[in-house]
Amino acid sequence: MIRLTLTALALIAPAAALAQDGTTLRGTGDLGVVIERATGSVLVVDQSDRAALCRVEGLGDLSHASLTFSPDERYAYVFGRDGGLSKVDILACTLENRVIQAGNSIGGAISDDGRLVAVSNYEPGGVNVLDADTLAPVAEIPMGSKTVGLADVPGSRFIVATWDDGEAWLLDHSADPANPQITRIPDVGANPYDALLTSDGRTYIVGLFGEKGLTTIDLWADPPTPRRILPDYGKNEPDLPVYKMPHLQGWTLAGATYALPAVGLHQVLWADAASGQETGRTDVAGQPVFVTARPDGRELWVNFAPPDNGKVQVIDSMTHEVKQTLEPGNGILHMEFTPRGREVWLSARDDDRVVIYDSRTYEKLAEIEAQAPSGIFFTARAHRTGL
Amino acid sequence: MIRLTLTALALIAPAAALAQDGTTLRGTGDLGVVIERATGSVLVVDQSDRAALCRVEGLGDLSHASLTFSPDERYAYVFGRDGGLSKVDILACTLENRVIQAGNSIGGAISDDGRLVAVSNYEPGGVNVLDADTLAPVAEIPMGSKTVGLADVPGSRFIVATWDDGEAWLLDHSADPANPQITRIPDVGANPYDALLTSDGRTYIVGLFGEKGLTTIDLWADPPTPRRILPDYGKNEPDLPVYKMPHLQGWTLAGATYALPAVGLHQVLWADAASGQETGRTDVAGQPVFVTARPDGRELWVNFAPPDNGKVQVIDSMTHEVKQTLEPGNGILHMEFTPRGREVWLSARDDDRVVIYDSRTYEKLAEIEAQAPSGIFFTARAHRTGL
Repeated sequence: MIRLTLTALALIAPAAALAQDGTTLRGTGDLGVVIERATGSVLVVDQSDRAALCRVEGLGDLSHASLTFSPDERYAYVFGRDGGLSKVDILACTLENRVIQAGNSIGGAISDDGRLVAVSNYEPGGVNVLDADTLAPVAEIPMGSKTVGLADVPGSRFIVATWDDGEAWLLDHSADPANPQITRIPDVGANPYDALLTSDGRTYIVGLFGEKGLTTIDLWADPPTPRRILPDYGKNEPDLPVYKMPHLQGWTLAGATYALPAVGLHQVLWADAASGQETGRTDVAGQPVFVTARPDGRELWVNFAPPDNGKVQVIDSMTHEVKQTLEPGNGILHMEFTPRGREVWLSARDDDRVVIYDSRTYEKLAEIEAQAPSGIFFTARAHRTGL
Repeated sequence: MIRLTLTALALIAPAAALAQDGTTLRGTGDLGVVIERATGSVLVVDQSDRAALCRVEGLGDLSHASLTFSPDERYAYVFGRDGGLSKVDILACTLENRVIQAGNSIGGAISDDGRLVAVSNYEPGGVNVLDADTLAPVAEIPMGSKTVGLADVPGSRFIVATWDDGEAWLLDHSADPANPQITRIPDVGANPYDALLTSDGRTYIVGLFGEKGLTTIDLWADPPTPRRILPDYGKNEPDLPVYKMPHLQGWTLAGATYALPAVGLHQVLWADAASGQETGRTDVAGQPVFVTARPDGRELWVNFAPPDNGKVQVIDSMTHEVKQTLEPGNGILHMEFTPRGREVWLSARDDDRVVIYDSRTYEKLAEIEAQAPSGIFFTARAHRTGL
């Protein structure tokens, strides 16, 4: 619709036959999108064929991008650093629409009915809510602060944390999308820099900058009230710049236990989810970035900050021991499991490729060329809360 | 390919435009399939439009049918009572293939790599494994017994229980699909009549006929060993015929607690998943059939056996109290939530319709005509283990 560029990369003929009316058909459950951070493009990939399908260009600054999918797994909403929101049709392989909704954005989410896309912004701050179909503005909620950790909450709701005020705002769009009912949750802590919603939509975990520990909020409680957990988190480490603080998307809740990157240490921490107390540590090969559970929760895969970002380690979730160390490539930025956990796809930014491993034999299965790949997002995310 | 009948029911034009090459495109993440039990047909439905797309006929005896989806969410494998296995292309709306793989079958599963479909059989017993692409036979595992409760286990594996011998068989097809490595787990209990695998693929729960209590098997243990739980399950009730025993698909694991139908009583039981001990009971409006958690786990929806099968009750998972009683129609056989839980679709067999409710306001949103609908299956199941 707007700036539309389409490059055929390695177009693969659909495996199945034509439909009765002569159209080409393809299911979308096994597709995915890879962010190419340096070129403002995304690569559409096919999990079953372990192949790239096509590239869509013209998405602006993707140096710190994330995305979310429509419920039908056809459209990807890509949130760029430059405030751009791009709607990509992964079936047609086109840039269907693109708007600059703010000056500097950091992430977004789609409502559980698939009708609203929300974006959290640094400049001018607050949250913008747009129509998922047209990308037309629906609501602007200024908040007077930079916002972080935006997530979808069941019931046409969103939650976000405010960097400047240390609050969480729960926005309920169910009655009137343009005028959300707002619940402000104060005293979350100084300078939330990131946040995470658990997959049941119940627990919002907020990372704090310039203060030790983290905060959780039980969204099933009435009213929802902040509770401090892991009071020693980052306590004995020198203060790091905010961009060196671990992403909360690097947390995993495996059963009743959190596994998370330590701050500034070569360790993965374990914490009891109910008590919020640390229960143990595992030494690993570098400063962890993401601690990602295989979908069955039996193993955790860990990648690392430089200079150890060529390694990936696998931890047994029962023994908490490292059982495997892999060297899949240079600049491993992201790990994405196929939905039922059979494979893991790794972006090797500095090798310009995505590397695919069997998650049980640790055997390399395939590679896909990509331009400085960062995030890998499979369409199954459309069906999950908090992504 | 074989008996192919296609009836246009209420064909809806795709919302989005044509692709550049003129083909019609549609994502499959929001599609679903409704079993029409009396007519041997299935209805393909669109969650976003709350509408039927088309009907596929000629699937044989669907009086006790289930189905599973390919990883791309394009194909439904429908397991019929008569030993028929039908592969339906839900995008093209065609019966792509159909084989009679045994004399009398009761359910099936698809491997986590999407390559193998397994079917458990009463006649002649055992498990047949077929190629998911062609439906050609890959392996026959006789077992000398009727089999029940077949489920996919991560790593190209399947598990099944044997009615006659009281065993569980774990089939590992990862090294050689045609010659699975077999692990037999004895002493599961007398006459397993149904079984369930938890969504992490770890715990296999087996229901026993002619013996009180149930058995769980931890598939992460080496060797996996049966453990008896809920020793009083069904103890004070008269012995029921096997077709009156609760389906184990009626169980729910919400957090660390099982919720399950009592045997022959108007009660839902609560049990601690770790200890296997009963922790409480909730009185409900009839003999429960399915106790189904809303995807966030905050509520459980319950339907009932005749004569109370016109009612549905909603239980609060924190207080264990009934908070809502609905009368959605006559002969409510199945409840299926949209993947992020915003809506619930109910099959009202005796009203020949599917009824759609908002799962938070309990407001009726729409109805879809269907011929004696039973099971409703949304494509998001493709991404989950044990379904």
